[in-house]
Amino acid sequence: MGLSGLTVTFEPDGKKARVKAGTTVLQAAKEASVSIRSECGGRGVCGKCKGIIRSADAVSEMSSAEKKLLSQPEIEEGYRLSCQTRILSNVVVMVPSESRIEASKIEVYGVERKVEINPLVRKIHVELKKPTLSDVKPDLERLLEAIEEQLEIGLLEFGFDVLKELPETLRRSNWNVAVVLWNNRVINVESGDAADEMFGMAVDIGTSKIVCHLVDLKSGETVAVGSVENPQVLYGEDVVSRITYASMGNPNLNSLRKLVVDGIDKVFGEVCQKAGIDPNKVYEAVVVGNTAMHHLFLGIQPKYLALSPYTPAIKRSICLAAKNLDIDSMNPRGVVTTFPIIAGFVGADAVAAILATGMHESEDNALLVDIGTNTEIIMGNREDMICCSCASGPAFEGAHIKDGMKAVTGAIERLRITANLEVEYETIGVGKPRGLCGSAVIDAVAEMFKHGIIDYHGRFNPNGTTPRLKRTDGGLEFIIAWQNETATGKEITVTQKDIREIQLAKAAIYSGCSILMKKKKLSEKNVNTLFIAGAFGNYINPENAKVIGLIPDIPTAKIKFVGNTAVTGAKMALISRKARKSINSILRVVQYHELAADPNFNSEFINALYIPHKIIDRFSSIKKYLL
Amino acid sequence: MGLSGLTVTFEPDGKKARVKAGTTVLQAAKEASVSIRSECGGRGVCGKCKGIIRSADAVSEMSSAEKKLLSQPEIEEGYRLSCQTRILSNVVVMVPSESRIEASKIEVYGVERKVEINPLVRKIHVELKKPTLSDVKPDLERLLEAIEEQLEIGLLEFGFDVLKELPETLRRSNWNVAVVLWNNRVINVESGDAADEMFGMAVDIGTSKIVCHLVDLKSGETVAVGSVENPQVLYGEDVVSRITYASMGNPNLNSLRKLVVDGIDKVFGEVCQKAGIDPNKVYEAVVVGNTAMHHLFLGIQPKYLALSPYTPAIKRSICLAAKNLDIDSMNPRGVVTTFPIIAGFVGADAVAAILATGMHESEDNALLVDIGTNTEIIMGNREDMICCSCASGPAFEGAHIKDGMKAVTGAIERLRITANLEVEYETIGVGKPRGLCGSAVIDAVAEMFKHGIIDYHGRFNPNGTTPRLKRTDGGLEFIIAWQNETATGKEITVTQKDIREIQLAKAAIYSGCSILMKKKKLSEKNVNTLFIAGAFGNYINPENAKVIGLIPDIPTAKIKFVGNTAVTGAKMALISRKARKSINSILRVVQYHELAADPNFNSEFINALYIPHKIIDRFSSIKKYLL
Repeated sequence: MGLSGLTVTFEPDGKKARVKAGTTVLQAAKEASVSIRSECGGRGVCGKCKGIIRSADAVSEMSSAEKKLLSQPEIEEGYRLSCQTRILSNVVVMVPSESRIEASKIEVYGVERKVEINPLVRKIHVELKKPTLSDVKPDLERLLEAIEEQLEIGLLEFGFDVLKELPETLRRSNWNVAVVLWNNRVINVESGDAADEMFGMAVDIGTSKIVCHLVDLKSGETVAVGSVENPQVLYGEDVVSRITYASMGNPNLNSLRKLVVDGIDKVFGEVCQKAGIDPNKVYEAVVVGNTAMHHLFLGIQPKYLALSPYTPAIKRSICLAAKNLDIDSMNPRGVVTTFPIIAGFVGADAVAAILATGMHESEDNALLVDIGTNTEIIMGNREDMICCSCASGPAFEGAHIKDGMKAVTGAIERLRITANLEVEYETIGVGKPRGLCGSAVIDAVAEMFKHGIIDYHGRFNPNGTTPRLKRTDGGLEFIIAWQNETATGKEITVTQKDIREIQLAKAAIYSGCSILMKKKKLSEKNVNTLFIAGAFGNYINPENAKVIGLIPDIPTAKIKFVGNTAVTGAKMALISRKARKSINSILRVVQYHELAADPNFNSEFINALYIPHKIIDRFSSIKKYLL
Repeated sequence: MGLSGLTVTFEPDGKKARVKAGTTVLQAAKEASVSIRSECGGRGVCGKCKGIIRSADAVSEMSSAEKKLLSQPEIEEGYRLSCQTRILSNVVVMVPSESRIEASKIEVYGVERKVEINPLVRKIHVELKKPTLSDVKPDLERLLEAIEEQLEIGLLEFGFDVLKELPETLRRSNWNVAVVLWNNRVINVESGDAADEMFGMAVDIGTSKIVCHLVDLKSGETVAVGSVENPQVLYGEDVVSRITYASMGNPNLNSLRKLVVDGIDKVFGEVCQKAGIDPNKVYEAVVVGNTAMHHLFLGIQPKYLALSPYTPAIKRSICLAAKNLDIDSMNPRGVVTTFPIIAGFVGADAVAAILATGMHESEDNALLVDIGTNTEIIMGNREDMICCSCASGPAFEGAHIKDGMKAVTGAIERLRITANLEVEYETIGVGKPRGLCGSAVIDAVAEMFKHGIIDYHGRFNPNGTTPRLKRTDGGLEFIIAWQNETATGKEITVTQKDIREIQLAKAAIYSGCSILMKKKKLSEKNVNTLFIAGAFGNYINPENAKVIGLIPDIPTAKIKFVGNTAVTGAKMALISRKARKSINSILRVVQYHELAADPNFNSEFINALYIPHKIIDRFSSIKKYLL
């Protein structure tokens, strides 16, 4: 097909194909190396090859097979069958998760510190004396006083729903009930004696994924984990496009809110089913997420997070009844607690990360880098912490990279260039590679630097003699995998532009670290631990991260990969009052530093664009690779 | 018409007529002396003569005039036009308030003690600093800290609705807002500077009437009063029939709840309109009522109030957002506060009465009698109070009395029998009398006793010679008004049965007072004040009340009529934190005494059936009337 063809873009991966008018979406997907489920071979029978197309004019009319196989709500949302839909002009196709055949490598576990099991949710069995003519104490007071006596606490609160049902519940259960408390509030009164069954959810609402742990609140153990794609990806992969959509009005805001609530309901339902737990026995959900996800989840207009000075609506933690947030898949009277946030771009997930690593309890100085599209950096100890957010961009997630992709089946996840400039690589899943995920791009840049294929400006050495160095219209490229090695039959390469993207991203992160270290008057030597968090962090080669100058030059022995600290921090708060209380001390000591307002940022950033850095003395351990 | 006719009962007055089949409801109403509006003379044109008939089979089919003049919701509720509807069998017709032409004498004012104006609602003007890159404090914290500084208070709470709108409200109003607080909770944030306009409602939900004061919370003054019939009368005049209806299931409970909320919305709307006040500026409603009304208003099943041991669901005060109770005619984020209750039959209205009279603050002993279908009696002082409830029945409201009626236009409200046994009386409104209201029945019994027409057993003296003493099949009757004096053309009389009803009612009240006095070891001499409260109390002749032995023999100078203390107690709590706080001290000192469980009750009651009492020494001041 020629350059005069039509462009089809497949989301959420952002893969593109150029095809002739009349090509089916399924054919175009193959062209673009996007895997879409199809069990009938494109005959319009299996109904598995669903795609969402929001510009109906860009494709052929709906076939009778589609009308038969798609539900009315699906049709209204723009669902089509890829094998039936022919492309008429440039079009974007969203491939919903149910139509994908990739297993994404999403980190659902993170480092977890031991805490005393003492959740805010309590469930106790209470037996009441029946009222008589000489003891006419009203039902509520009878119940609360019995609980107060049993638990030796005072001043209980109660939910209005509990009160409304109380006369019937007490008499139906013959004055013998299981009472659920959240802190000092009675949230549910149940007939009988099921005082053992109490569960909670720890939830991280990520921009891409919602990850959840179902936790037994008696034992503190995770009994099931689950994750779903954040359904908001329909309105854009990144935070900014969702904020833009929401800021166009409350109906938009509400539909984004509804999507994330649907996603939460879906993953809650899945983990409960997996563990065989009645969702009505789930009494609390502790929710973390970046500030935009937090605002969208609560239905707060996030517009001003994207406008200078990037002010969030609220900092503190809030607690609401599940039913007030329309969450259906837990006890409706259960409590949903959001973690507090620090700033517009340092969200509840960062607070959870601090809690999970325990850096707020230690005298030692730690540096925490939570890598994502926005990278949060926190530095300090229990006395004093400082944090910032860097716009590191999506390059480390494989976006904006010619052959980049997410860490899903078919991605090369690590690689090494040998002395004779051959490339050895490992691929996720079985089968041939289709592209490079973030950790492999870091490896590629680092290895090319070590072998002199690129210089400290990030430029290809024009005198390179390896056949892997290929000259194209767009400049030089380095071939990681030859045509015959790949699933697509095309070479997988790293381009000059890819290297520039990585330089911009790593410079953003490094200059954030560097500015915080300066503010705290600390050098690399004073950092006792460097925590690397984030769904993607665990797969990075720390040596190579230092070679490209992504992180400060801290001995590898001091680097800890801590995984999905957002969800484990949430879990700690869920099961431990002490951990929850310590969130307040985190908020007290952590200061937000706005990089956009820092006078040194520009020069720091420019110096950090070099590999590993303009001031090479900052990377002594890397000097050995310098030619 | 003969005795073989059909019986039509008109509610809420309970008037009956016997009519031939085929008579229109409007004709039957005239027969029964029930006034129904009719502007077209019964031609089916004006649509004013509405009545509600719930047994559709008992009347003729709907005419085309009715179909035209009644709305669909009215038709569904059983509305008919009285002039079009012919009676086919025994039937009950509810005359809705809009079809009545009577002005009811309902006490909407009560005694009011001066209190410092310091309502829980506050409204202040706050100017905020705009956020900048060097001051990125989140919106909520920016607002709360500014309020805390301005008011010199800490630890403010806030409504979730406030938070959700906050980013937009702050920016739209250019960081210049009016903030409404309820206690230490921010309930509303309004653009601009309307910090002067704050109002509240004091509401008494009576079994018959909902009475409301619209209060300016800056000045503490009532700016408008209003009252509407409690729309629950559709399901019965008395508390027990409504409890019975509600106990048949939650849909019934909910429809009773909806009716009272509709009534509240109606009267709130009326007073706001009367005073020219925007309902959104009404930020709190303080609600009192007897325990059954309280439970029905909150949607709590009242079934167990009517079953021994008559246990209420809750004692303490509760506060909810107006929108959570579906109240539309005030600010939806405003707070609805219910007064606490004391027992199943000593409700929030009794607490309000104590607050209004101030008996809980005085060293002197007081006796408070709040007369109604249930009469609440409270005795004591600031150290110690005791209370009980007596089933005094509806006789004092004119029910169960042959020519009894409510204190509405056409009712004789007071009367005197002269030395030559003539009767002088006063009627409410202009025009001829149609019956006797409660105060006149008391007068009649007392005057007949004073003149020897009845003896101390309450029996007519069979040797009486006045022509007003009339012998009927049912026994002797005393003629209060001759045929030619009345609006109905029939005599108004007091029957032997009427006297028995009054004796039962007054014995219930007196024995309650007597038992409490004994429990407190107090005699009439130690009672410094006797407060008589209740919508009907103000019109009683206190001398005659003592003659019949309705109240203890306390000097008239010590008797104070205090009117509708329920609504004024509510108003005091609305405008004064101190008054509201003192409710707690009331609840601490007041003890409920269950008369049904008192071993002396039966003998006390039997002795109290005599006029004034079996033990005449208890009524020394009455001895002068004894022959």
